[in-house]
Amino acid sequence: MSAQPAPLLALDLTGTFAFGLNGALTAVRAARLDVVGVVVLGMITALGGGFIRDVLIDSLPPATLLDWRYYTLAAGGGLIAFALSRHLRRLEPAIDVLDAVGLSTFAVIGASKALDAGLGVAPAILLGVVTAVGGGTIRDTLVRRIPTVLRTGLYAVPALVGAAITVATVETGLYGLPAALGAAAACFLIRVLGLRLGLNAPEPPETRSPGGRKQNRA
Amino acid sequence: MSAQPAPLLALDLTGTFAFGLNGALTAVRAARLDVVGVVVLGMITALGGGFIRDVLIDSLPPATLLDWRYYTLAAGGGLIAFALSRHLRRLEPAIDVLDAVGLSTFAVIGASKALDAGLGVAPAILLGVVTAVGGGTIRDTLVRRIPTVLRTGLYAVPALVGAAITVATVETGLYGLPAALGAAAACFLIRVLGLRLGLNAPEPPETRSPGGRKQNRA
Amino acid sequence: MSAQPAPLLALDLTGTFAFGLNGALTAVRAARLDVVGVVVLGMITALGGGFIRDVLIDSLPPATLLDWRYYTLAAGGGLIAFALSRHLRRLEPAIDVLDAVGLSTFAVIGASKALDAGLGVAPAILLGVVTAVGGGTIRDTLVRRIPTVLRTGLYAVPALVGAAITVATVETGLYGLPAALGAAAACFLIRVLGLRLGLNAPEPPETRSPGGRKQNRA
Repeated sequence: MSAQPAPLLALDLTGTFAFGLNGALTAVRAARLDVVGVVVLGMITALGGGFIRDVLIDSLPPATLLDWRYYTLAAGGGLIAFALSRHLRRLEPAIDVLDAVGLSTFAVIGASKALDAGLGVAPAILLGVVTAVGGGTIRDTLVRRIPTVLRTGLYAVPALVGAAITVATVETGLYGLPAALGAAAACFLIRVLGLRLGLNAPEPPETRSPGGRKQNRA
Repeated sequence: MSAQPAPLLALDLTGTFAFGLNGALTAVRAARLDVVGVVVLGMITALGGGFIRDVLIDSLPPATLLDWRYYTLAAGGGLIAFALSRHLRRLEPAIDVLDAVGLSTFAVIGASKALDAGLGVAPAILLGVVTAVGGGTIRDTLVRRIPTVLRTGLYAVPALVGAAITVATVETGLYGLPAALGAAAACFLIRVLGLRLGLNAPEPPETRSPGGRKQNRA
Repeated sequence: MSAQPAPLLALDLTGTFAFGLNGALTAVRAARLDVVGVVVLGMITALGGGFIRDVLIDSLPPATLLDWRYYTLAAGGGLIAFALSRHLRRLEPAIDVLDAVGLSTFAVIGASKALDAGLGVAPAILLGVVTAVGGGTIRDTLVRRIPTVLRTGLYAVPALVGAAITVATVETGLYGLPAALGAAAACFLIRVLGLRLGLNAPEPPETRSPGGRKQNRA
C-alpha cells in the first residue's frame, strides 16, 4: 500500500470517493433509505470489493481500514450523495462516469495487488474484476437488485480488459504508471462506450424468443 | 478471547444466544422455513457479525468456532425459536428486547476486539457496528428483506454510540467492566427508546413528497 | 491440497465442475443473464463454498485460486452451461444429479480440511456443510431466490450426514479413501432419494394451517 506511487494512490483514492458517491446515489435510486442506510451503502460500494480481494489474498486487516483517507473518502462520498439526492435525476450521467472511474482504477489496482500477493495470471485478472465489481454487487444484493455485473456484460468485460492489460504488462516487465493509466483508460473507454451505444454481451438463446425478452430481469 | 473477564464473556454469550433466538424468530416471521432453515438463520444471525469482524481483523479461525459455548448457544437459540414459533405474535416484544441485547453486547465487544487488533479509532467503531449488525444483515439478505440496518437509522446509530463509548474509554484508559457495561447500556437504551417512540434518522428529501413515502420499502 | 490422494482430488475436481455447470444452469433458470453473468454464477457456485471455508480456517489464498484446474473447471462448467442453456428443460434431471455430486464431495472434503485446520468436531461438520452449500447460497442470493438450503431441509441434512461420517471416521482413525467415498455416497443417496420421494424436514406449525401453506416461499 505505502509503496504505491503517488499517481496510482491518487487514482485509487479517486476511485474510492467515486464509488462512495456513486454507490450511495445508486442506493437512493433503488430504495428510499435514511442517511445511515445511504452512507452505509456508499461505504460498502467503495470498500467492499477491496475487502473481498484483501481477504482472498490474505492481506488483512484490509488496507482501506488501516489508511484513514480511504474510509473517510468513502463515508464522505456517501454523505455528499445523501445531500445531493434531491437532484438525483440531473446527476445520472455523472453517476455513470463516476462509476466507470471507480471500475477502472479498482480493476487495475486489484489485479496488480493480486499479482504482488503471488497469485497466477488468471486468478489475478479475476481478483481485479472482483475488486472492481465486488462492492457494487454487495450493495445491489442488499437493496435487492440483480447485481449490475450479472445483468450487463459490458460491466465485467471492461474490468476484465483493464485487469488483463495490467497483468500482461506486469508479466512482460512493462508495468508502471503509464501502463496502469493506459489499462484504466481502456477499461473506462469500453465502459463508457458500452453505455452510450447500449452494447451488451451475448445472451442465452431463449431470451431472444418472441414475447419473453428479459422478462425475468429486475 | 480467553483473556475476556467473566462478566464480559457472560454478556457476549448472552448476546450470542439472544441473536440465535431472535434471528431464527425473525426468519420465521419473514419466510416459512423448515427446522434446518430456521436453525441455520439463527446461527448466521448469532455468528455472522463476529465472523466478518474476525476476518477483517485477521483473527482466524473465528473465536466462536473455537469455543463450543458460542456455536452451541447459537444453535440452541435457533432450535428454541423453532419450537416457539407457534407463539410468534405473543413473542414480538421479547424479540425486540433480545435483539437490543445482542446489538449492545456485540457493538461493545466488536469495537474492543478491533482496537486490540491494532485498528484505529474510526475503523474500530465501524467494526463494532459491523459485529452488531452483520449477522442480521446476512440473515435479512438471505430471506430477501431489505436489511434492518438500511431501513432503520436507529439500528446502526445505537450500535455506533455503544462502539464509540467503548473506543473513547479505551483510548482514555477508562475501559473496564463498568465502562463496557455502560456502553452496552447506552446502546440498549437508545435502541429500545427508538423502538418505543418510533424515532428515525433523516431521510432524503424525495421520500417526504406526498404519495411517495417509503413506497419502495420491504 | 497437494497431499490429497488422487481419487479424492478427482472427486473434488468433479464436484467443482459439477457445481460450475449446475450453478450456471440454475442461474439461467432463475434469471435471464448474458454469458458473463452465467459464467460468473457458475464460478461462484463452484468456488464460493470453498472460499468461505478457506477464509474461516485461515487457509488463504484459497486453494482453488492457487491450482489452475479448479478455476478452469469452474469457468468451463459455466461456459458449457451457457452453450447448453437452450436445452434447459431436458437437462433438469441431470442438473439435480450434478448438484448432488458437488454437494457430496464438498461436504466430505470441507469437513476433512476443517479438521486438518484444527477445528473441533462440531465446527468441522458445520464447515463441511458450509463448503457444500455456500456457493449455491451466494448464487441464489445474487439472483434473488431464497437459498435452497433454507427452503429444503433435505439439502443441508445430507451434507450434514456426509460431513458427520467424515468427521467420525477421522476421529476413530478409520478415515481414508473408502471412508471418504462412503461418506460422499451416503450424502449423495440421501439427497437423490429425498428429491425422488419429495421428502422434507419438519416445518413450523403455522405452515401446516389451511390456506397458508408455503405462501411465503419463492
